[in-house]
Amino acid sequence: MSARWIADRMHQIDASGIRKVFDLAADMTDPINLSIGQPHFDTPEPIKQALKQATDDGHNAYSQTQGIKPLLTRLQSHVDETYGHDDRQVFVTSGTSGGLMLALCTLVGPGDEVIIFDPYFVMYKHLTRLSGGVPVLVDTYPDFRIDVDKVRAAITDRTKVILCNSPSNPTGHVASAEEMQALAELAKEHDVALISDEIYKAFCYDDAFVSPTNWNDQTIVIDGFSKSHSMTGWRIGWCHGPAHVIQQMIKLQQFTFVCAPHPVQWAAMAAWDYDISSHVDEYKQKRNFMLESLRDDFEIHGAGGAFYLFIKSPNGNGTEFVKRAIESNLLIIPGNVFSEQDTHFRISYAAEDATLKRGVEVLKELARTVSGR
Amino acid sequence: MSARWIADRMHQIDASGIRKVFDLAADMTDPINLSIGQPHFDTPEPIKQALKQATDDGHNAYSQTQGIKPLLTRLQSHVDETYGHDDRQVFVTSGTSGGLMLALCTLVGPGDEVIIFDPYFVMYKHLTRLSGGVPVLVDTYPDFRIDVDKVRAAITDRTKVILCNSPSNPTGHVASAEEMQALAELAKEHDVALISDEIYKAFCYDDAFVSPTNWNDQTIVIDGFSKSHSMTGWRIGWCHGPAHVIQQMIKLQQFTFVCAPHPVQWAAMAAWDYDISSHVDEYKQKRNFMLESLRDDFEIHGAGGAFYLFIKSPNGNGTEFVKRAIESNLLIIPGNVFSEQDTHFRISYAAEDATLKRGVEVLKELARTVSGR
Repeated sequence: MSARWIADRMHQIDASGIRKVFDLAADMTDPINLSIGQPHFDTPEPIKQALKQATDDGHNAYSQTQGIKPLLTRLQSHVDETYGHDDRQVFVTSGTSGGLMLALCTLVGPGDEVIIFDPYFVMYKHLTRLSGGVPVLVDTYPDFRIDVDKVRAAITDRTKVILCNSPSNPTGHVASAEEMQALAELAKEHDVALISDEIYKAFCYDDAFVSPTNWNDQTIVIDGFSKSHSMTGWRIGWCHGPAHVIQQMIKLQQFTFVCAPHPVQWAAMAAWDYDISSHVDEYKQKRNFMLESLRDDFEIHGAGGAFYLFIKSPNGNGTEFVKRAIESNLLIIPGNVFSEQDTHFRISYAAEDATLKRGVEVLKELARTVSGR
Repeated sequence: MSARWIADRMHQIDASGIRKVFDLAADMTDPINLSIGQPHFDTPEPIKQALKQATDDGHNAYSQTQGIKPLLTRLQSHVDETYGHDDRQVFVTSGTSGGLMLALCTLVGPGDEVIIFDPYFVMYKHLTRLSGGVPVLVDTYPDFRIDVDKVRAAITDRTKVILCNSPSNPTGHVASAEEMQALAELAKEHDVALISDEIYKAFCYDDAFVSPTNWNDQTIVIDGFSKSHSMTGWRIGWCHGPAHVIQQMIKLQQFTFVCAPHPVQWAAMAAWDYDISSHVDEYKQKRNFMLESLRDDFEIHGAGGAFYLFIKSPNGNGTEFVKRAIESNLLIIPGNVFSEQDTHFRISYAAEDATLKRGVEVLKELARTVSGR
């Protein structure tokens, strides 16, 4: 065995955060599980039907690298209608993680800096390290809003990318038009690539979703079907951006992901036609219930979208609070999995109402018993 | 638009070789197509049925990063029975390209050297560049056998990986036990990681397949279902190797591929149980027909496995020969797509017999008319 075999980059990547929680949880039987990062409903029937039809129709071999034409045509029309940019090109990725990986490896070289908002989706730091880049974190506590002055202060000669995510995992914060416009214009001013991860954009409960692409025509957008249509295990997403960047990403896809799973691409067309508004309404009701139940006992910001609440621990220590929650049979995730700080915890309300009610009871009890700092 | 946005690594990767051929071929109507790198039959019915069942059964969300347990159990048992290594661990990848990408990014850092045999599968050089490594090519012309002395001469202090592929794409060469033993022991002697790409191992027509893993228990094996079971568009493969390397690869999979497509993993169990020997027999017949038809007119080595022939152009120029072939409505691929040399061309015999016959006619005619050098 040769430890020297492992490349340095792998030692800079500690992807074990959530695993540690699941290890803690391994002894739990029938936990109240509010840790899950995906919808609690199965893939809708017409989409499953389309997958089965595609495989019967023989769409089982490689597709074109960039995706099947009928899907590309729909996505491109949508993007053209939405933004009207001459140069904006679409392609099909293997999930949003696939799109993110291709974007970062296409843009970021050794030593380049990537600005990431803290709290962040766990992959952002790891994918930056994979590309040889350096994550530069911009703090958004306590309200998780983007402060463009802080971003400006973080920009250096090595800044290559600003990576934003609205609605946000883990905070549920939905950026306002003002935040997005300021960020988009700042990126343009400094000729820095702006990557907008929009995987949760269907889930906005108070204000409409806004993309920075409205103010910055060079924005690279990562999008997908996984969360909106409950297709997380099917590994399909899509991406659009300036053609010269997209061409490079497709080149990289050619010898990594090769193509998104081919029959799934046909099913994605059924997903595109499927109305998910009832699911969004359902999650809005769940969000309302959770906020109403918890806001007297906890400090909660964000929470305008996605299906997460990022809540401050009453004693200011996320890990300790989660340990206590697990002792009470409630599985949630400590904030330090998503942050340099360990002051919060994340709950997902993508769960049955009965589970949410049980979770609320435990959380309210813990609010009373976990002492302030 | 900012050309400076693109990371240096992307400028070192020219993945356009096959595309150039397909551009040349764009005007062909109903070509005699002997260029395809995948089986000409559709995914077998029981495997398609298993995919449909899996999606009906609700296996549509994320799976575990390393793959579903029942599939892992089968693969692990097989590997344990075959090699009996204490430390050999299996996981499920998103195709063999996925496994290769993870292996190279796990092992290779900037400036590290990866020994690749020329002619090579097109991805090897690109994936090495993606990881920051330097491809070091070891020539195997004219007979495509591995000369272990040449490999020894290519090893330096920076050598991190030797990457072998038997049966080979594009040559069809099946390495003998002697070749594999010598290579396996050389890698061990120098404490260099040996990656064995065994995606075509089901397709051996003369001699049995041998893995270097028999002589080197640290070998990292890339395997899959795509070629043997015609599931190229489903993006599933598997990988096994020493546990400390596999653990790192799984860590990297967690935030790139996330997991192999979940319903496809259940279908892979049906694939595992499916007898492909009739398909292998069929390709053996096709191989025999092609060799018998062409060997009087062309110099052909390798050709013991996979479904390719890598043939020397009568005038010593692969690109020119392919241009002439395309003028005669035959689509084949010039050798310089797979090699630093441009002396050969690749034909795939994964095609209907009638297509092979038409291809042979054109090739024999070209052998007469394309002048020697």
